[in-house]
Amino acid sequence: MQLITVGTVAFDRIETPFGVAEKTVGGAATYISLAASCFLEKMGLVSVVGDDFPADVMAQLEERGVDLKGLEVLRGKESFFWAGRYHYDMNTRDTLETRLNVLLDLDPELPTEYTSAPYVMLGNLDPVVQGKVLDQMAGTPALVVMDTMNFWMDSAMEKLKEVIARVDILTINDAEARQLSGEHSLVKAAAKILDLGPKYLVVKKGEHGALLFGQDRVFFAPALPLEDVVDPTGAGDTFAGGFVGYLARTQDHSFDNLKRAIIVGSAMASFTCEKFGIERLVEISREDIDERIQQFVELVDFDIELVEN
Amino acid sequence: MQLITVGTVAFDRIETPFGVAEKTVGGAATYISLAASCFLEKMGLVSVVGDDFPADVMAQLEERGVDLKGLEVLRGKESFFWAGRYHYDMNTRDTLETRLNVLLDLDPELPTEYTSAPYVMLGNLDPVVQGKVLDQMAGTPALVVMDTMNFWMDSAMEKLKEVIARVDILTINDAEARQLSGEHSLVKAAAKILDLGPKYLVVKKGEHGALLFGQDRVFFAPALPLEDVVDPTGAGDTFAGGFVGYLARTQDHSFDNLKRAIIVGSAMASFTCEKFGIERLVEISREDIDERIQQFVELVDFDIELVEN
Repeated sequence: MQLITVGTVAFDRIETPFGVAEKTVGGAATYISLAASCFLEKMGLVSVVGDDFPADVMAQLEERGVDLKGLEVLRGKESFFWAGRYHYDMNTRDTLETRLNVLLDLDPELPTEYTSAPYVMLGNLDPVVQGKVLDQMAGTPALVVMDTMNFWMDSAMEKLKEVIARVDILTINDAEARQLSGEHSLVKAAAKILDLGPKYLVVKKGEHGALLFGQDRVFFAPALPLEDVVDPTGAGDTFAGGFVGYLARTQDHSFDNLKRAIIVGSAMASFTCEKFGIERLVEISREDIDERIQQFVELVDFDIELVEN
Repeated sequence: MQLITVGTVAFDRIETPFGVAEKTVGGAATYISLAASCFLEKMGLVSVVGDDFPADVMAQLEERGVDLKGLEVLRGKESFFWAGRYHYDMNTRDTLETRLNVLLDLDPELPTEYTSAPYVMLGNLDPVVQGKVLDQMAGTPALVVMDTMNFWMDSAMEKLKEVIARVDILTINDAEARQLSGEHSLVKAAAKILDLGPKYLVVKKGEHGALLFGQDRVFFAPALPLEDVVDPTGAGDTFAGGFVGYLARTQDHSFDNLKRAIIVGSAMASFTCEKFGIERLVEISREDIDERIQQFVELVDFDIELVEN
């Protein structure tokens, strides 16, 4: 087991100004696992679904190396459901409906072979559940990456900070970095958040790219300007999956390799935006990924001499 | 005369969540000229002020090589005045007051030596005035860069498009690119705007950086994450001044050199944000600029091998 991921596995209803997906497979752990599976052979997924969850999607995950012993299926219950509507800018959205359903019963017990996984991805979820996963790990994992959101800052800040203190890398968006730190400047916000425990902070800015902050170091990766953004749902989770998948594959946690992982994550996320739900993510090839990474190289590449007097 | 700039020279009253500047010198042509003067010896400025405009600022401009024969001073009249208030995000603002004052009388007559300037910067202004400046040029300038804003799209779209058709490079923000083109995707917006005439489009995204679009080419430059943003007023104009100043100095309009000019413009803009008004811009040295450009190099620098199978 190279990586285990805990997070939601769900159905989404997505409205954008340009189209609607009535009931599409989503969930943080789904996107993360699918993205990471492009780089890894054997991963575990920790979550819960109802018996309404499609068997063919579970088969697809398994085919890609995602072990589902950690995915509890509750008979007679319904999977987590989220409905949202994107604004015209496609970068902000409103939640229309959240039906927790089986998520209320999520109290994960890790299969034994999961507990020695070197890489752990804590997808956005109740920090209590995220903490329980870490509690069950045998020894200290090589790297723990954690995603979260403003909802947990509003409702469970103390519990959230306890988990943040236990992880190596935290990924949140710019507004959340400001909320978590109480600082407007992202530079100051990052310094405060790193003081909470993580070695690195990734600030996700959607169509505006991502920032990686380490102790006194910063790196910026743009988002690829896309001809058409069909649905950004899951882009942040896909980013995280590509990021942690690349790190688990290369097993190199240097700042230079983290930068590469950010580029890989950004490339993966750009695919997710091109179709609804996981549609695009499941169809891309290794060649598609390489080609897209090359586009990122060209997008930011420049050479400059200092201006001579 | 290496460059002439037309645009406002003004007083601003600026409120941010963190401070207020009651009456500070501003205006597009002021920022553009000051930024360009870091790279050039001899520039002309075309604008109008009242006799309330401070003589020491005019002297400062002249010391930096900005010729003021094109700056009309109207006795007994007041300079253009703008007041604005920034939101907490420091990336959006409301206009509180606009007193056009002398701007109503701006009908520029170019001094003869201005008419052969190879580089022309049309700062944000009534497109009729921008057009009149181009009408007076003797022959075709080597490069014309134009800035504008949504106000002119709302009130004078046809006149605006006539001027856009005559310039080489247009600089606007992302919302304006969407408004001007009627396209949400910036990739599609850029294609439509380039069809209007310009060879290149620069999309300014404030704290989220800038995009350069050419025919089938795109380049992205981030904004530098700053410890403190004191006042973003004039950052876009400073960007344009650094951009066109660097191009006028290097006289190279290749895509690779435009990319360098974008980085130089972004570096210059980052200084402007560090203090109110033009305070920071007038105090920086060549060494400060070189050091900051180096920070941009490090901010986006990465090397990546394609992911091996």
